[in-house]
Order: sequence, then structure tokens, then C-alpha cells
Amino acid sequence: MVVGLGTGSTVYYSLERIDKKLKSGALTNIRVIPCSEHIKNECISRGIPVTTLSDPSCVGVNIFIDGVDEIDKDFNTVKGRSGSFFREKLVKSSAAKTVIVCDNSKLTRVLGPGAPVPVEVVPYSHEFTCRRIESLPALQGCRAIIRRGSLTNTTSDGMSISVTDNGNFIADLYFDGPLSKIEEAIQELDTTTGVVEHGLNSRWENANVVFLIATDHGVRLASPLDESTPIWWDEMQTKRPLARESVDNRNPPPIV
Amino acid sequence: MVVGLGTGSTVYYSLERIDKKLKSGALTNIRVIPCSEHIKNECISRGIPVTTLSDPSCVGVNIFIDGVDEIDKDFNTVKGRSGSFFREKLVKSSAAKTVIVCDNSKLTRVLGPGAPVPVEVVPYSHEFTCRRIESLPALQGCRAIIRRGSLTNTTSDGMSISVTDNGNFIADLYFDGPLSKIEEAIQELDTTTGVVEHGLNSRWENANVVFLIATDHGVRLASPLDESTPIWWDEMQTKRPLARESVDNRNPPPIV
Repeated sequence: MVVGLGTGSTVYYSLERIDKKLKSGALTNIRVIPCSEHIKNECISRGIPVTTLSDPSCVGVNIFIDGVDEIDKDFNTVKGRSGSFFREKLVKSSAAKTVIVCDNSKLTRVLGPGAPVPVEVVPYSHEFTCRRIESLPALQGCRAIIRRGSLTNTTSDGMSISVTDNGNFIADLYFDGPLSKIEEAIQELDTTTGVVEHGLNSRWENANVVFLIATDHGVRLASPLDESTPIWWDEMQTKRPLARESVDNRNPPPIV
Repeated sequence: MVVGLGTGSTVYYSLERIDKKLKSGALTNIRVIPCSEHIKNECISRGIPVTTLSDPSCVGVNIFIDGVDEIDKDFNTVKGRSGSFFREKLVKSSAAKTVIVCDNSKLTRVLGPGAPVPVEVVPYSHEFTCRRIESLPALQGCRAIIRRGSLTNTTSDGMSISVTDNGNFIADLYFDGPLSKIEEAIQELDTTTGVVEHGLNSRWENANVVFLIATDHGVRLASPLDESTPIWWDEMQTKRPLARESVDNRNPPPIV
């Protein structure tokens, strides 16, 4: 069985659980495709076999486990705080099943003002590409800020431009208002020269994804295909303010 | 005036002509955005000022001059033998006007069996990306061969994988039959994770392009918007076999 592992704290907990089950014999014959060097090194140090999509013996990924930056009520998601969203999208696209693990602080009414949307861009003329992204019809009003310092942190903690595993830069898109035309935004980003990949996933792309969401009342299993989901989602939102919404991260980091 | 210059022999001739006109005073105040190091160095050695799209004083490209690998009767084109199609697409997309200069050996009835379609791919798991490209519905039957040796040559003249200016690889797509669903092929390539850019341009993307085609009867000016074009195009095709069609380049280079 081939297990893809994305990035983030929840993925780390999943890896710990897989390791325990392998050691107890409850799981056998597992190979992991890690999407970051951190998870890869964790696997190697625990003796868990790793593989890649390019391995001819790897005919596909049985299950992909990942985290998320934000999920709206329609199951559109933003992903990419870790800077590894290219590999995550590649592995997700080859996986028979994807499970997103998070807590309810990641739930939001609308995408946009909360987590910035990361876009991996080719370094050549990236300033031009950023201006072009800002002028895309479905993304109007966004500010594209090139990520600096640590690759895994959207708040600038260094002066030099962050470089992805692919040798590219990341433009974080900050919005004051809601990102309402998500399908159009994805289509416009996909067809923009200079854009390698982005952290948006539409509800259609997430149609077969299972969401495991930790709440005050235990873990809820949610799915775009489950019609009862919006009911408790609303309840959760009215009963308490979401942690993410109480954080003021609307202001992009200064350009240093 | 900002002039974008693509790659290829015809572009080199254009540069020579610009240089002559600058020296004679017939042209003044020209800045060039070159799409290859070769053209850039030629400009510098001739004293022609160069600029980039990222230069804040460069608000756009007035005219872009480029060559082409193949043009079909509907003005769909393939471009990328030189390996610089990423920069060429970027500059073309910002240009007020584009002129393609070529001779009639580049005219073909259908795209596919003639010039391979180049696709710039991220090196990470590129074998997987190639398998995925081969299985895209509108590209069925193609073989994706990673370019080796010189970046500017689709016939392998070396063992090591060619690396683009962006640090990526090029998969050349070889077809036995016609590539009939060009719009769909473009859309599928655009949305495939791992694909950075490709050398296909649809007739719609070329709607405002002017084609200058050298023929036995002089230079013909052709445009997708000019309804008389298909008439002489057909004549040219029936009067003599096209050079490109007499060349057997259907067999991809061996993998070494």
C-alpha cells in the first residue's frame, strides 16, 4: 500500500500513528511518498520505506493524507502555507483517496481575507507575473507579495526570497474581501504564463476528499457529497467564533 | 519603443535589420527584450539597449517578433524547438502586436506528425508527469520524450537531460497522427500539475498575430482575420510539396 503524506502538524501526527501501527503489526507492507524533506527524514529515521511517483513499481497512491490552511462551507480549500503545495497537488492528483485532517479553526465562511493564496511562480520576470496575477479578473483587488525568509512561513522572517524545492518563488495573494469566483480564479491562474502551481482547490476538485475535522464535540467526518454537512457546519460557526477569524492576518508582511 | 525578440534564424535577421536601421537613424529610441541569451548577447555586442519585463519603466511590449516550428491552415502553431518558449510566451502575452516570420516550409495541413510539441515540466517526478501527459484525452497516442543534449535541438545530441533557463526539463511530444483537438489539448496541458508551459498556441491565441511567410512568389502576409488566406494557402500546398512534409522526423530520438 502506498500512502502519500502532505505537510503540517496533523500529517506529522498521522505519521506517528502509522509508525505505531507498523511496529505493532497492525499495518504491514506500507510505502510512503513524502511531500517534504521533513516528513521524508522522519520516515527514514523511523525505518518506514519511502518511494516516489517516478518509481516504476509505484502504479499509484492508495491514500493521500494532508492538512489544509482554510476550508469554506462549499469545501473549496486553500493550501500552501508550508510551501510544498506543488508536490502535494501532484500526489493528490494520483491518489485513489484523499483525507484532509484539520481542526475547526480552519473552517471559514469565505476564502480570501483569512489565509493568503500561495502561487508558485517562475523566477524570470516574476515581478511582471505578479502584476499580471493582480490584474486577473477573478482575482481583482489582491496583492501579490513574494514570500521571503523561511519557505514554510507566510510572515516574513528574513530578507532573502524563499525558494521552493523546484527552484521557484512563491507569491502570496492577500485579499481584503471574499474570493467569490473560485472556479474562474483557478482557471485564470492555470492559464497564466509564469504560474507553475497554486494552492487553490475547488469544491469539484475536492468532491472525493474526506475531511476529518477535530471539534469541541469530537471528530466530525465531512464530505462535499454529504448533504448533512452544512447543517452542523453552521452550528459550529454560530456557537463560537472561529480561531482563525479572531487572528488579524489581513495585513501582508512588509516587503523588506 | 520596446521590441520583444524571440528565437530562431528569422529573428536573427530581424535583429540585423533593426541594427541597420538604428545605425542609419531610420529607427531611434528602441529597447529590446530578448528571449534567449544568444539574442541578448547579440544586442549587447551591437550596442542595442536591452530591458526586461520586470523593469518598472517597461510598461509593455509594443511589438514582438518571433519564428515558429509549424503553422496549420487554421493558424494553430507549434513553437519550442529552441527551448525558449516559456520566455517567448511571456513576452508575446504582454505584446500589443506579434509578428511571426517564417518561410512556407513551416506550413502544414495538420499539427502532430511534423514538429514535436514541446512541454516544459518540473523535474520532480517528471517521469510520472510524462506518463500523465501521454494519457490526457486530447493527446492520446503521443509519446513524451525528455529532451537530451543541446537544449535547442529536438534530435538527441547528448546523453544528459537538457535543462531550460528556468531549471526545468522539456518533454517533446511525438504524434503519429494529427493533433485534432488543439483547444482541448491546451486546456488539458494548462491544468496538469507538473506542466510549466507548452509550445502550442491556438488559432484564438493567434487571432491578432500577423504572419510574414516567405514563399517562391515573394513574402505573403497572412492573418487569421483575413478571409482570403486559406485560398492561397491551399494553392501553395498543391503546387509543391512542403519541405517539412518531405522530412521524416516522425521517429523520436532514442533514449540514451
